[in-house]
Amino acid sequence: MDRSDLIAVSRGERPADFVIRNARVVNVFSGELEETDVAFFDRWVAGLGTDYEGEREIDVGGRYLVPGLIDAHVHIESSLATPAEFARAVLPRGTTTVISDPHEIANVHGLPGIHYMLGASEGIPLSVMVMASSCVPATDMATAGAALHAEDLRQLRSHPRVLGLAEVMNFPGVIHGDPEVAAKLDAFRDRPIDGHAPGVSGKPLNAYAAAGPSTDHECTSAQEALEKLRRGLFVLFRDATNARNLGDLLPILTPITSRRIALCTDDRQPPDLLDQGGIDSMVRAVIQAGVDPVEAIRLATLNPAEHFRLHDRGAVGPGRRADFFLVGSLIDLEVEQVYAGGKLVAQGGAALPFPAAAAGSPPEPSMDIDWSRVSFRVPAKEGEIRLIRAIPDQIVTGSERLIPTIRDGTVIADPDRDILKIAVVERHLGSGRVGVGFVTGVGLDSGALAGTVAHDHHNLIVIGAEDASMLAAARRVAEMGGGLCVARGERVLASLPLPIGGLMSPEPIEEIRRRLDRVVQAARDLGSDLHDPFMAMSFLGLEVIPKLKITDRGLVDVEAFQFVDLWT
Amino acid sequence: MDRSDLIAVSRGERPADFVIRNARVVNVFSGELEETDVAFFDRWVAGLGTDYEGEREIDVGGRYLVPGLIDAHVHIESSLATPAEFARAVLPRGTTTVISDPHEIANVHGLPGIHYMLGASEGIPLSVMVMASSCVPATDMATAGAALHAEDLRQLRSHPRVLGLAEVMNFPGVIHGDPEVAAKLDAFRDRPIDGHAPGVSGKPLNAYAAAGPSTDHECTSAQEALEKLRRGLFVLFRDATNARNLGDLLPILTPITSRRIALCTDDRQPPDLLDQGGIDSMVRAVIQAGVDPVEAIRLATLNPAEHFRLHDRGAVGPGRRADFFLVGSLIDLEVEQVYAGGKLVAQGGAALPFPAAAAGSPPEPSMDIDWSRVSFRVPAKEGEIRLIRAIPDQIVTGSERLIPTIRDGTVIADPDRDILKIAVVERHLGSGRVGVGFVTGVGLDSGALAGTVAHDHHNLIVIGAEDASMLAAARRVAEMGGGLCVARGERVLASLPLPIGGLMSPEPIEEIRRRLDRVVQAARDLGSDLHDPFMAMSFLGLEVIPKLKITDRGLVDVEAFQFVDLWT
Repeated sequence: MDRSDLIAVSRGERPADFVIRNARVVNVFSGELEETDVAFFDRWVAGLGTDYEGEREIDVGGRYLVPGLIDAHVHIESSLATPAEFARAVLPRGTTTVISDPHEIANVHGLPGIHYMLGASEGIPLSVMVMASSCVPATDMATAGAALHAEDLRQLRSHPRVLGLAEVMNFPGVIHGDPEVAAKLDAFRDRPIDGHAPGVSGKPLNAYAAAGPSTDHECTSAQEALEKLRRGLFVLFRDATNARNLGDLLPILTPITSRRIALCTDDRQPPDLLDQGGIDSMVRAVIQAGVDPVEAIRLATLNPAEHFRLHDRGAVGPGRRADFFLVGSLIDLEVEQVYAGGKLVAQGGAALPFPAAAAGSPPEPSMDIDWSRVSFRVPAKEGEIRLIRAIPDQIVTGSERLIPTIRDGTVIADPDRDILKIAVVERHLGSGRVGVGFVTGVGLDSGALAGTVAHDHHNLIVIGAEDASMLAAARRVAEMGGGLCVARGERVLASLPLPIGGLMSPEPIEEIRRRLDRVVQAARDLGSDLHDPFMAMSFLGLEVIPKLKITDRGLVDVEAFQFVDLWT
Repeated sequence: MDRSDLIAVSRGERPADFVIRNARVVNVFSGELEETDVAFFDRWVAGLGTDYEGEREIDVGGRYLVPGLIDAHVHIESSLATPAEFARAVLPRGTTTVISDPHEIANVHGLPGIHYMLGASEGIPLSVMVMASSCVPATDMATAGAALHAEDLRQLRSHPRVLGLAEVMNFPGVIHGDPEVAAKLDAFRDRPIDGHAPGVSGKPLNAYAAAGPSTDHECTSAQEALEKLRRGLFVLFRDATNARNLGDLLPILTPITSRRIALCTDDRQPPDLLDQGGIDSMVRAVIQAGVDPVEAIRLATLNPAEHFRLHDRGAVGPGRRADFFLVGSLIDLEVEQVYAGGKLVAQGGAALPFPAAAAGSPPEPSMDIDWSRVSFRVPAKEGEIRLIRAIPDQIVTGSERLIPTIRDGTVIADPDRDILKIAVVERHLGSGRVGVGFVTGVGLDSGALAGTVAHDHHNLIVIGAEDASMLAAARRVAEMGGGLCVARGERVLASLPLPIGGLMSPEPIEEIRRRLDRVVQAARDLGSDLHDPFMAMSFLGLEVIPKLKITDRGLVDVEAFQFVDLWT
């Protein structure tokens, strides 16, 4: 099947593989709903018009035919599932392409981690595009399992699914012209470069945009988003499990600005993916906010396709990929059938079975901890300590100060004051390094949570009401080769093994969700009232998102981009 | 000067080369007018904001600062001037980038012709981007001076100013999957491919779009333009000297469709360029039709920049090229100063002097005619002949039939019936081949016009009231090594030498214009009331624009894409 066969179908000389009759096509080029038939051949749209004949003909009785949705930025690892299982979750809801940044597994396993994600998504019905992970490690303030330099990233350019450079989170490095960061930007200057510049404004924003990044998905206010859009950044509205910004940013969406905006989920956990969906949930929210449905759909089709130079998709047009779905209503957008590359891939909310990817095996677990050197003890001193404040549904944190609770010469967690201990145990090199601090807003009365999902270094992160529970939870996680765990005293209450990089499970996503629900419930039973305490915990170690974070090397003041002492 | 210096200026650590204070920036990203200062460094915009310091500071007192305009499609050869002289005409009016197709000179001289245009535009202040000429020759129904195959065009891909494949005019070849055309499309499938599909609609349009072209600039009605836009073609509104379509197409421009639309001049002769301008005249016309000025400016800035993947320009934003102009009013758009790459390049309507391009010499003239074999005689027969009807300000023609005027056994021109003889003399190979036909709508009472500007084969084309004048005019053109000429009897009334390919003069554009005005006036004095009879004549040989055209090989029915006999 080559393009000359397609053209023969388009001009009507050869029958289409199938023709969908009586569709209302969402035409994202013209902004119209077009009542017409559509002919398909092989993996392409052959043509629109009412006089095509096909080997098969399907009358859809006026249903809307919508271009397949594109998630403009997602870390598949946050689904805790393999790419194929992630696909099974998002395909039935109309997502046919994702632009992914595999920087979670890259921080654990380096280039072999990225190649695992490419292999594990090869040939599956979801188009998994990859941006080359730019910040491995995110900074030198945390210990990751690997480091990727410009020359490593250059090797990825020739892969047909690698589009550009992934979010350049080291924004101070970008703004101050750090040579290592500049070399990575130079390696991708002719490609899309994703940005990440939370709260950056004024001259630093000019510097960030001048350096090369072309998108930003970290805006938390309309004002911030509008300034970035004015400076030429393509703005991605985000609704991640733990960072819901869409509602705050929607006011900047107008018919004039909309072409410079797309939608992304960034990080979504299995319950969100299975209950709310992927990017479809954001399109639905935009429509329900009163935006014209065709305009809303553009945000997740033509806009990201154009920006990421995916000129073979993003619309239902001749010669483009036959990626589309059918719905009865453009208001509730309940997806009935989904086609990808001309094949029916999901129906009635469920993905059809597809052959396994051409995956290699995942890399061996990275879990090297010398427990004899691990201690969570914090000797007492005089004065105030810095305290991380977790903010519900945000990945930014607050930074506070208070006089800690002291017992027997050590600083202890004090659940009555909502002060918990947080520790990050280095797990890649066996250094025995542990960063210890304190956090409020998580809300455990007793026990501890531990996990190897800790953006982006993915060391072993632990939060607890006392050290014994913390150690028990942490050691169980290590024994599982990575995962999530809740313990009280020496007793493990619930656990979810994530042996692929300490980030992903090989199980079906529904099974992962069941086990995740159990660990989350166990954490809630211990007193946390966060939507997902594990998701919240996983961002408390991310030293590129303000304000106060913790890594295996210590507390980080993100705005100053430097370590600070626990004691003020 | 590298990008790290730029970033230092952007973040305010190093002074800008110059700062423009008190500007109202046309922000094509947000659609706003932004009152701010703008800092510039080297060839770039460093930043927007009111607290930059510069080596020089220029207060523009609230003038509008507009991104440099981009002509989305132009054949520079139609200016009859070299690229540098073309630049002197368009720069002072705000055009800083043109996307050119050198297919006129390519049809005469092949790859050396394209390399001449690249060399002659290297380093001049106008950015001359090049699309690789796809249709050399346009078809096999005319004799060109060269043929470019897919492998020839592939060689051009590595040139930094070659963006993609130029207008694929052989639309029947595209639609029917002609292997030679398909090979050219395949060679540029990852790049923008300009289309050219006049009047193509329905299934053939689906086939055309499926084959790969991503633009069209041949629409003559709003309905045609809207259908093409719906099928995913990026539509270029054109106002060429002899093809003014903007007014007819403007009705499809809405805030929803506008991102899929840009503006182009295609072919403009010196009087138009010097009196009306380049793409600026179209922006002005769009504004005067009532469109929001920022939206109108987007059509000639951000839109073509995005489509042609010129991500370093098309807006005033940090890190983009400092290509911009200053105006006091967004209604009349009278350009006061123009900057390109950070340098003042025009002021008060005149280009500042700039060093000559790094040009090689133009190729030797292609002018090989065996006059002993040239005859314009048409033996009489019974019945009707086909007659080309020239249509004012259009490059499409009508096709009519009538009983011709016959004298002494030959068909003769009959100015009283507005029937003139038209001939195309092959000039590249010395074949002696002459195509002879008849035309109405040109309106000479006596004498003849001849020229070597005859799209796209650029053979020697002649129109006259009798054979002696035709021969005198044609021979004078050949003696000049190409050009335009008006003769009556044996007397040459006016002439313009165009020795570069028979298409361009090395003279200043003002001088070319003076001589062109004289040949046009001489043609008008002979009775033609066309705006520019030479421009009209130059398209009567273009066998890819409907309906009836003539080449050295004979009359062409363009809709049938085949030769037809003079006699019906």
